Amino acid sequence: MTPSARRKICIVVASRANYARIKSVLKAVKAHPNLQLQLIVSASALLYRFGSAVDVIRADGFEPDEILHIILEGENPTTMAKSTGIAIMEMATAFANLRPDVVLTVADRFETLATAVAASYMNITLAHTQGGEVTGSIDESVRHAVTKFSHIHFPATDQSAERLIKLGENPDYIFRTGCPAIDLLPEIKGKPLPKQFFDDWHIGGGSGAGATIDPVKPYLVVMQHPVTTEYGSGLDQINETLKAVHGSGMQAVWFWPNVDAGSEDISKGLRVFRENTANHHIRFFRNMPPEEFALLLANCACMVGNSSAGLREAAFLGVPSVNIGNRQNGRERGDNVVDADHDRDQILACIRRQVDHGRYASSHLFGDGHAGARIADVLAECTPPIQKWLTY
Amino acid sequence: MTPSARRKICIVVASRANYARIKSVLKAVKAHPNLQLQLIVSASALLYRFGSAVDVIRADGFEPDEILHIILEGENPTTMAKSTGIAIMEMATAFANLRPDVVLTVADRFETLATAVAASYMNITLAHTQGGEVTGSIDESVRHAVTKFSHIHFPATDQSAERLIKLGENPDYIFRTGCPAIDLLPEIKGKPLPKQFFDDWHIGGGSGAGATIDPVKPYLVVMQHPVTTEYGSGLDQINETLKAVHGSGMQAVWFWPNVDAGSEDISKGLRVFRENTANHHIRFFRNMPPEEFALLLANCACMVGNSSAGLREAAFLGVPSVNIGNRQNGRERGDNVVDADHDRDQILACIRRQVDHGRYASSHLFGDGHAGARIADVLAECTPPIQKWLTY
Amino acid sequence: MTPSARRKICIVVASRANYARIKSVLKAVKAHPNLQLQLIVSASALLYRFGSAVDVIRADGFEPDEILHIILEGENPTTMAKSTGIAIMEMATAFANLRPDVVLTVADRFETLATAVAASYMNITLAHTQGGEVTGSIDESVRHAVTKFSHIHFPATDQSAERLIKLGENPDYIFRTGCPAIDLLPEIKGKPLPKQFFDDWHIGGGSGAGATIDPVKPYLVVMQHPVTTEYGSGLDQINETLKAVHGSGMQAVWFWPNVDAGSEDISKGLRVFRENTANHHIRFFRNMPPEEFALLLANCACMVGNSSAGLREAAFLGVPSVNIGNRQNGRERGDNVVDADHDRDQILACIRRQVDHGRYASSHLFGDGHAGARIADVLAECTPPIQKWLTY
Amino acid sequence: MTPSARRKICIVVASRANYARIKSVLKAVKAHPNLQLQLIVSASALLYRFGSAVDVIRADGFEPDEILHIILEGENPTTMAKSTGIAIMEMATAFANLRPDVVLTVADRFETLATAVAASYMNITLAHTQGGEVTGSIDESVRHAVTKFSHIHFPATDQSAERLIKLGENPDYIFRTGCPAIDLLPEIKGKPLPKQFFDDWHIGGGSGAGATIDPVKPYLVVMQHPVTTEYGSGLDQINETLKAVHGSGMQAVWFWPNVDAGSEDISKGLRVFRENTANHHIRFFRNMPPEEFALLLANCACMVGNSSAGLREAAFLGVPSVNIGNRQNGRERGDNVVDADHDRDQILACIRRQVDHGRYASSHLFGDGHAGARIADVLAECTPPIQKWLTY
Repeated sequence: MTPSARRKICIVVASRANYARIKSVLKAVKAHPNLQLQLIVSASALLYRFGSAVDVIRADGFEPDEILHIILEGENPTTMAKSTGIAIMEMATAFANLRPDVVLTVADRFETLATAVAASYMNITLAHTQGGEVTGSIDESVRHAVTKFSHIHFPATDQSAERLIKLGENPDYIFRTGCPAIDLLPEIKGKPLPKQFFDDWHIGGGSGAGATIDPVKPYLVVMQHPVTTEYGSGLDQINETLKAVHGSGMQAVWFWPNVDAGSEDISKGLRVFRENTANHHIRFFRNMPPEEFALLLANCACMVGNSSAGLREAAFLGVPSVNIGNRQNGRERGDNVVDADHDRDQILACIRRQVDHGRYASSHLFGDGHAGARIADVLAECTPPIQKWLTY
Repeated sequence: MTPSARRKICIVVASRANYARIKSVLKAVKAHPNLQLQLIVSASALLYRFGSAVDVIRADGFEPDEILHIILEGENPTTMAKSTGIAIMEMATAFANLRPDVVLTVADRFETLATAVAASYMNITLAHTQGGEVTGSIDESVRHAVTKFSHIHFPATDQSAERLIKLGENPDYIFRTGCPAIDLLPEIKGKPLPKQFFDDWHIGGGSGAGATIDPVKPYLVVMQHPVTTEYGSGLDQINETLKAVHGSGMQAVWFWPNVDAGSEDISKGLRVFRENTANHHIRFFRNMPPEEFALLLANCACMVGNSSAGLREAAFLGVPSVNIGNRQNGRERGDNVVDADHDRDQILACIRRQVDHGRYASSHLFGDGHAGARIADVLAECTPPIQKWLTY
Repeated sequence: MTPSARRKICIVVASRANYARIKSVLKAVKAHPNLQLQLIVSASALLYRFGSAVDVIRADGFEPDEILHIILEGENPTTMAKSTGIAIMEMATAFANLRPDVVLTVADRFETLATAVAASYMNITLAHTQGGEVTGSIDESVRHAVTKFSHIHFPATDQSAERLIKLGENPDYIFRTGCPAIDLLPEIKGKPLPKQFFDDWHIGGGSGAGATIDPVKPYLVVMQHPVTTEYGSGLDQINETLKAVHGSGMQAVWFWPNVDAGSEDISKGLRVFRENTANHHIRFFRNMPPEEFALLLANCACMVGNSSAGLREAAFLGVPSVNIGNRQNGRERGDNVVDADHDRDQILACIRRQVDHGRYASSHLFGDGHAGARIADVLAECTPPIQKWLTY
Repeated sequence: MTPSARRKICIVVASRANYARIKSVLKAVKAHPNLQLQLIVSASALLYRFGSAVDVIRADGFEPDEILHIILEGENPTTMAKSTGIAIMEMATAFANLRPDVVLTVADRFETLATAVAASYMNITLAHTQGGEVTGSIDESVRHAVTKFSHIHFPATDQSAERLIKLGENPDYIFRTGCPAIDLLPEIKGKPLPKQFFDDWHIGGGSGAGATIDPVKPYLVVMQHPVTTEYGSGLDQINETLKAVHGSGMQAVWFWPNVDAGSEDISKGLRVFRENTANHHIRFFRNMPPEEFALLLANCACMVGNSSAGLREAAFLGVPSVNIGNRQNGRERGDNVVDADHDRDQILACIRRQVDHGRYASSHLFGDGHAGARIADVLAECTPPIQKWLTY
């Protein structure tokens, strides 16, 4: 197919988490003979504080077609709303320049929504991953709203696909491909952590800061983001988790929170802890390339926090996970997850239970590792009408 | 109840159509002892070209708390997307200033969506009218997306309420109140058009421009808006309707189109017709106060175009209606509606059939005239959790 | 010179007036072997209401590299400020995409300022026409502020060049080239108005609307814009002019006002006059291509209003001009101008005096007709340091 | 005077530096019987990374009337331009809400410009401090552009006042009041640093991070900001300074850079140094309340970097200062300043020379300590016409 005849698939990557969940699709689209990849990198994926995912993306060989700064700094509900507005303005310009045939938007963030709104008002076919999943936080409303804008759906699980049908989406355009995040895991599974892992430089996160981690001894991985619908509680929430993790006496690798409203409360808790706690065992990272994070996760004693990685990637890897609070409420999960409230004792008890339990059996709940190729194939063929309609 | 203890209900009016569909709620909220009305007037409701609804609103005794200009002039898909972004930025500021307890957003326009997004990210309870209805145009996707953000639903019809339940909304927060637009009609029904109606000055539209209309003879009312998902076809579409209406030989009162992408194509068609057609029988208006428009509609021989008024208000009034094209696809309708493609012959045949038929029986499909009071009562009591969840 | 070695000169055209004042530069840059023209068309130059200058530009063979919508509709002081903000956001994206070597900004409008601010913060060399001129309205402050950002100056007159030196600008980068607007006039001078001029279709303005103009009889040309610093007085001001022009009994060609704050007041006056005055002799236009406007002006009995065309182009053409109010306060002028307050009697007396006087001698005050070529030559060679400094 | 009769003076504080330079005016306006203070806090003054000046402001008893987030995160030329655009949009809303009689804008930052542009287009009287000063960086152009918008000028020095007159500003509205920053210094001068100064908690900066500082031994204060017109050189520039300061063997208190384009390059240099240098003697702060910073400065052995504090406050305090690079090019200075290029050897030699020299005589060049009261008195009386004009 001549280059100009290829379908232009525009993919928007807006955070470090986005990237891990769409990287295999970027590869598959780039490699597909009938597709042309258009890559927009935006939002916190551009920012040092959040791990400069753009550096990881470039190191992986993807050159962005557009760089869109849209984060109005402040990390509160007002700035999150306004950042969404700015993102729509910027995405509209980018789409007007790139003229994509299909825009693919990832998951349930405010950038995801902005992408969906701009594409929809511009009559561009919209594809979406992670539709039909259920969680807490404003992400829940956003995800389903984005579904209502989307013409093509790539749900990760059977249950999600079912939900999309219930939501009135046309089954002809629902493709249960699995989650692209899982595609990165098969080749990581079973590999040990290299001895120098914590001395090595990881793009986007350097070698971290804080305590020295002995890669031979058991360690926790902690990732706790703000819950936007509980804005104002973040400092209390992170302090409970800090007390529990510190109280466990175990080594921990801790990732700074994402850019959502309340981020600063979480960060403040972490900073105050770090400045005031002598002899702690925590090392702080901003980011890691997806495969390195996967390796870190695959070898940890337990994942702790409220990231979907504890339910999604950890299920496939069989890593025990302690899920805290309401952020993942309702999300499908494998046997590897136990829930805890924002209560230091409960969290600590759960950590101990999970560390004692050790590895779980691997679950293919969120995919079998071939999502990227399937998605690219659909994007090359599927031509839904631009006018959507409910099936009921 | 002391003023400060009253619940603050913020209602956003963004177009002349919005206002007719929410006016009775404004009255009921303003009059409610336990509620405080906060009124935001925005978008095309502020603009002369679209009938300065703000002047009508003020003349009705409602003083806006905030005036928000958000229309990026251009009326194309890119500017419609960008206007949505600007609207989110401005709404966020307004909500941060007003600190409402509930935001009420109307129908399915881009301003409706912007209102919903800003309120949602700011953790403000969102209420919505017209949820669960089905139509064509981007409005269809927007309406259901807004449903996914809304905590309280005020559907107009039973079928709409059913659809909201299917969409996974909690039945406890779905209130089938009827459409507030119908509330204005009972006292209009049966009243004849005053002799001086077309000489009188109507706020927002003056006395129109174009041919002289004899209020004693039969006349058509025409309102045709752009269909955003068919952007680029507007000029052809309006020309078919113009040919049909002009060809009917009947008098017609024609309203300029709304601000959606493609507006300029429609307007161009109207302007070219007007400049090049000697002795036509069409009078052009930008706007009329809701009750005056209702009176005009109630006494017309037939409503023509693609406005929901032909299905909604006209059903209650028993006015014959010719519905053109896809914009109202799937919307519930009474017996008073016949459909036509964008084809001058078909449209003209339908007009003749409907004029010959004359009045239909009144239908309460979209409400019984008491929606406003019901909505105010719910707003005074209802306290849904800020975290939404699907029912399945 | 290879195309990639050519200096990229980005010119921003933001209004119909802008275009007439920069067209000869567009031609000269496009034709220059060492330059590459990058054209941005923006603001009211894109809008039907203000004469769609973009259509004229395209018909002249210039294809825009970027189309930037930036007008927040409302035409009041708040929306004018906000439009400036939007313009900066959009210009920054455009400059980031186009990577020009020099940005050329025209005159003293809010878009001019936005262009200057975006380019300056992005370390792009800025060139400016009309620096050093003096007028009323906010344009006065804007013009001098833009001078303080500009690296290369193209003043029209000796006096303007002197003022730039007094303002502390480096004489090495001040080039007294004359105004490019004058470049269009030599070949128009002396040509009569074609018989069908008012029947012909003029891009951007059609054949106008209103009274029929007899091109053989004397006619006035009227152009009156809002004075932003006198916001709120526009309706009174335009009514005085309307009374005077109508009272003169002469035919008049009247141009709708520009997009500045207060535009709607002026337009309202014109609309009300038009709707309520039987048998007037005024024909209304939104725009005309620059050469056609020049021909219209060259053959008129008198120019009336507050446009700089009455001082600038009219001086070269020797056309009598009545300058009303403060908008042109302090601007250099030839003998062809008499001043009037916003007073119908005074305006009418001035019109009569000027019509009686007839043609003035041509003045080269604002240029000799070779500005475009001179400007292009400077742009091809001049390399000022990006860091500016005052000369004192 | 009744509260409603008081003139409303709106002051915009947009950075930690802004605040120190306007605090005494806030106090004087607040205390003035004929004035009402309206305080807008915006931009980096709201952000943790830049020292949360808003917390300092509140602790000082000033409650903001408006909080405006306008920083588009990214710290590059494009985001700086876009932040200016966003700031204009937000300021316009704030001014529309507050309806001030006079807006006072400080110095030469992009927020200063945004404030000036929004106020000017909204016909609000604009007052300005620091006009007529000369420096490098884009600040130079911005400062003079803001002068061209300003109706009332409060220059700090005689030379600056002279320059304003040369720039064509009306001498009747130029008031040589001195710089309000100096007002905070008389009561600090001569006071020693408290023993616990570096253990104490300073609002906005905590107790810093890094090496322990012995307040009894000599220490340097370092503050080096990006030079926007040299964007891309920041990392090299900061490394030279780091090498020199580290090489001096002296203790140093180092402030993180401001939010200008290039900030991230400077920060990166500081982070890399900190992570890779064992046993350094540098303590890093984000901010300090103005009086505490003044005390720190007053007692240091030498100020190093490119902050105007080295020329302005240090002159009054007689503190030796090493001024690096072009950022302060052309600014008036006392005897206490020596210049160095971005060259580690040169910087180190200058530091040694200045430390050896010790205290200089106090200079009143930038003020005598009574600027705030003078400015408030002028603001209470001065009524310039809204239409500006050049004096030549």
